[in-house]
Amino acid sequence: MPIYNVMEEIVKNVLDENIEQLHLSCTCKRCRNDILAISLNKLPPHYIVNKDSSPYIRAAYTADRQGATNILSTVIQAAEIVAKNKRCGN
Amino acid sequence: MPIYNVMEEIVKNVLDENIEQLHLSCTCKRCRNDILAISLNKLPPHYIVNKDSSPYIRAAYTADRQGATNILSTVIQAAEIVAKNKRCGN
Repeated sequence: MPIYNVMEEIVKNVLDENIEQLHLSCTCKRCRNDILAISLNKLPPHYIVNKDSSPYIRAAYTADRQGATNILSTVIQAAEIVAKNKRCGN
Repeated sequence: MPIYNVMEEIVKNVLDENIEQLHLSCTCKRCRNDILAISLNKLPPHYIVNKDSSPYIRAAYTADRQGATNILSTVIQAAEIVAKNKRCGN
């Protein structure tokens, strides 16, 4: 489906860039995907039809200090939830 | 990315099931995708990691009369917005 939620890419970048500072007890794919899903369910979606406009939208979110801080705190909360309820079996 | 927003499938089904009643002036792919994107940006995302659970989540939304009505009215509003601002050039 050509529609695309830019927030997926934004949250993934924030998680990847902060993975060290998050001190996750497990960084397996399942745990990271659980963190992404929980975060995305708490953040407003930003669907676009034309993926070419994705970089501009991502840049706008990054430039918006408050928005970027909100996304990071959402990812931190999601990481805490996953740390307490790991579903990967590790 | 294995994470997946079940709301995408739900809204697509609602649009496909009601496409006749919506009396869209244009039913091209671009217009339908614009309707999906606008609708999804107004509805709470429901991301899952395991696509196998998608049917149960979809069924829950369908069974929830109020939720289903809300999704349909969101799609109707989005269809009106797209009808006034077609970006397909038709």
